[in-house]
Amino acid sequence: MRMLVPVLLAAFAVPAAAAEPSRPARTTQQVLAEAKPGDWRALDPENTLYLDLAAGRVVIELAPAFAPLHAANIRTLVRQRYFDGLAILRVQDNFVTQWGDPDSENADKARSLGKAGRRIAAEFTRAAQGLAFTALPDGDVYAPEVGFSDGFAAARDPASGRAWLAHCYGAVGAGRDNDPESGSGAELYVVIGQAPRQLDRNIALVGRVVEGIELLSALPRGSGPLGFYEKPEQRLPIRSVRLAADVPEAQRLPLEALRTDTATFQALIESRRNRRDDWYQVPAGKIDLCNIPLPVRRRPDPA
Amino acid sequence: MRMLVPVLLAAFAVPAAAAEPSRPARTTQQVLAEAKPGDWRALDPENTLYLDLAAGRVVIELAPAFAPLHAANIRTLVRQRYFDGLAILRVQDNFVTQWGDPDSENADKARSLGKAGRRIAAEFTRAAQGLAFTALPDGDVYAPEVGFSDGFAAARDPASGRAWLAHCYGAVGAGRDNDPESGSGAELYVVIGQAPRQLDRNIALVGRVVEGIELLSALPRGSGPLGFYEKPEQRLPIRSVRLAADVPEAQRLPLEALRTDTATFQALIESRRNRRDDWYQVPAGKIDLCNIPLPVRRRPDPA
Repeated sequence: MRMLVPVLLAAFAVPAAAAEPSRPARTTQQVLAEAKPGDWRALDPENTLYLDLAAGRVVIELAPAFAPLHAANIRTLVRQRYFDGLAILRVQDNFVTQWGDPDSENADKARSLGKAGRRIAAEFTRAAQGLAFTALPDGDVYAPEVGFSDGFAAARDPASGRAWLAHCYGAVGAGRDNDPESGSGAELYVVIGQAPRQLDRNIALVGRVVEGIELLSALPRGSGPLGFYEKPEQRLPIRSVRLAADVPEAQRLPLEALRTDTATFQALIESRRNRRDDWYQVPAGKIDLCNIPLPVRRRPDPA
Repeated sequence: MRMLVPVLLAAFAVPAAAAEPSRPARTTQQVLAEAKPGDWRALDPENTLYLDLAAGRVVIELAPAFAPLHAANIRTLVRQRYFDGLAILRVQDNFVTQWGDPDSENADKARSLGKAGRRIAAEFTRAAQGLAFTALPDGDVYAPEVGFSDGFAAARDPASGRAWLAHCYGAVGAGRDNDPESGSGAELYVVIGQAPRQLDRNIALVGRVVEGIELLSALPRGSGPLGFYEKPEQRLPIRSVRLAADVPEAQRLPLEALRTDTATFQALIESRRNRRDDWYQVPAGKIDLCNIPLPVRRRPDPA
């Protein structure tokens, strides 16, 4: 059968013409194989969520640098076990999967948010100043500048001095109503299609899925308006959501993410911008922010 | 529950500040409601495929303006009922779903391609001259110029005088091996994630899914390399593939696509570039080629 594009299993052929004198062009696989231990960072257990479904675990990394109030509110909700027994409510093709309380708008039946806030300031952008930012030189349709900030795809605008997370595949945000402050983190969504960048600066992104996205992206699409499931039995139950910090250390997943402020990450971008394997005829020469993978791995055994 | 972005059910509020004197800004829904009959084109039955699965029908429009040899070969294969009883072989998350003959590389078991070609010229680009093209002014990361050609998202390069189809969500292409001419249309893929534009100019796109994409995008992801299903029983059987022209006229789906060379389509792009409903706080101001919907409808009853 025809293979069509080896993605992370790229062949190791390196065209001589593409090689630089000092450092031959490398495939993505080569770059990752040659990464140093310091190129990886362990996920912070205080910013790591385990969303457990019958089919398996989704791991989400929170982004408190961009949405500190939302991150704190989500931690409060999780520690109250707010999400346990709630459900995935909406799957809209090429857009988002969304979960929360199906009865959130029914005052008699809605689950209490407990000590968590019901309204959170609209953390749609933040000051660019003080933010780590590795710019991507390839350009962008939506923002004056894009790049990476501590492992997250982000954008910033020198004119306004503001920065924000980008709605790339796997980005997790806090649903809201028309009122910009109506989001609380009690209802969350994840991007499962072409990056809906028009949402940038309009809603609070709170993190990204770092493992298990396929448990949310391959679900049956809802047949109701906006992809909501029309029948209660179509909803997918959430077994539990836990903060990694609240799980015994021995039970935490030893996940590490590739640091985005490293030469290794730059080499990885280049390996994706201009593919080196034999399959490609024409290297793209450029790459979109949302086409750059953000590798995550299990920490290797020190032995 | 929080709604998060009414997509095609946008509220009808029109901010006064965004309105032009002569023509107030319209929502997507308003634009479509006000489209004239001539803004729509009937799909050509000679270029329309019905891919039938147990769960329903996927409709694919072929693009012979870009890949005439592939389109002809696919018609030949379909008329031989080549695809009937074959299967979906591969679903790679955020990338592609692919179908064909699981035994294609086993000479003893592979299904015969009959009168169809086994190798097809590499229709990865074509001459821009003579091609209808409505340019999108918003810019693009991957190509000097992007836009629409007879209903398809496309790109062109004034320097080389070449044009090509763009790998947007729903684009359908012909899998190939490393040999650029090894594709035949006997194995096809559809984009189900963030537009893999690095494939542009590297493989022949032959059309796009116009209806039923969720039957291909919501399938379980394959656990083998590149998302191939590892066990034969995981593959999803294809009941049949038919050309609409070969189906009795009364049984054809009366599908119409919005013409992309119309003022209505320009208004639709603008309605997506700068959203007018109450939910949005900041209009994006720009839009990516692959974020523009290409509406398809059932022909309205003349009565």
